[in-house]
Amino acid sequence: MREIQALVFDAYGTLFDVHSVIAMCEELWPGRGAALSQLWRAKQLEYTWQRSLMRRYEDFARVTAAGLRHACAALGLALDESRRLRLMDAYLRLATYPEVRTALTELKAMRLKLAILSNGSPAMLRPVVANAGLRWAIGTVISVDPAKVYKPAPAVYQLAVSKLRAPKSAIGFVSSNCWDACGAKSFGFRTFWINRAGAPLDELGAVPDHIVGSLAELPALIGNGRRT
Amino acid sequence: MREIQALVFDAYGTLFDVHSVIAMCEELWPGRGAALSQLWRAKQLEYTWQRSLMRRYEDFARVTAAGLRHACAALGLALDESRRLRLMDAYLRLATYPEVRTALTELKAMRLKLAILSNGSPAMLRPVVANAGLRWAIGTVISVDPAKVYKPAPAVYQLAVSKLRAPKSAIGFVSSNCWDACGAKSFGFRTFWINRAGAPLDELGAVPDHIVGSLAELPALIGNGRRT
Repeated sequence: MREIQALVFDAYGTLFDVHSVIAMCEELWPGRGAALSQLWRAKQLEYTWQRSLMRRYEDFARVTAAGLRHACAALGLALDESRRLRLMDAYLRLATYPEVRTALTELKAMRLKLAILSNGSPAMLRPVVANAGLRWAIGTVISVDPAKVYKPAPAVYQLAVSKLRAPKSAIGFVSSNCWDACGAKSFGFRTFWINRAGAPLDELGAVPDHIVGSLAELPALIGNGRRT
Repeated sequence: MREIQALVFDAYGTLFDVHSVIAMCEELWPGRGAALSQLWRAKQLEYTWQRSLMRRYEDFARVTAAGLRHACAALGLALDESRRLRLMDAYLRLATYPEVRTALTELKAMRLKLAILSNGSPAMLRPVVANAGLRWAIGTVISVDPAKVYKPAPAVYQLAVSKLRAPKSAIGFVSSNCWDACGAKSFGFRTFWINRAGAPLDELGAVPDHIVGSLAELPALIGNGRRT
């Protein structure tokens, strides 16, 4: 893959492990944490798609808070201000997956530009990148916010082309969300689906170019292509 | 509500009870029916939103079949051709909710035009309306298909305005899916959310005008408004 000049990573679930949010749900409501975090995540994503189609974009912090309120109401869990703040704050302090630091170091040594392209609002992305100590690796952090629409709309992926000043064909896109990798492929990026859970492919009319089990496989995969 | 000239109904879950599909899932995979039908429905809807945003519309029969394949693969259930056909066929033979016939009779007596506006493809909607014996009541069956995008995109609700030749403000929209009622409200319809399960409102920046427990409440609600 000698043509790849830049790698663009999804944030939540790809670089950052949302497990600590799930753990805090369980701490706050013992026995209900799994149900809450599952419904919260589902509503958070649904709202991004529905608002995008309704042309009623609202930033990801607000959408995330709305999803949390809905999930708590649906499950009969009382969400007071203190719990809400603790859960939203946990989103700013996510750990990275164990292989992230080594993988980014190797990719950076290959002179690839590294960037993030995320649904997250700028106010969510800045602290999570800083708190995880990734500023040395990630040169460009791109939020969907200027496009006022969410993934997988083409206008979102276009932001990376504009910001990185590289052609589509020179950008590799990496996501653990299959639908996000499919959206990026449909847009024209070379795509890498990080399939940590061994899930089946989503059927969206565009198939990711590569499927790997973790970010640790990326340096060899991209390096081999480059040497050919 | 004397200004209302037409009522437009969502189909699946609003007029038609998808319980028989759920029952067939359980019949085909005992003990796994609930998990399968829940994941199938979730994927079916996700694919409509994601494909709409990706600008890769594909008709609802294909999206529904893709959601089924994905759900079976994710749950490790073997989907052969015979099971697939039986499940897809069940979608064409859904029963109506118990109050539907009486409610539609009363609404028709009030000289309201009655229509369906559904994600369903024309080839799915024609048989389900005919098999349920609703052709006498529903004058116009509108599929999203000509718009090549799914709910809650405004272009979908615009189809009803064009087909019924009535202004937005004269159209009442009825759905059991809160996000669909929110989308129709955002577009400009007077909206009725049929909240059979007592769920909390979705937070999408547009709130349905009326929330009722079943279609049986509609004739009195609309008639009272008309007499004022």
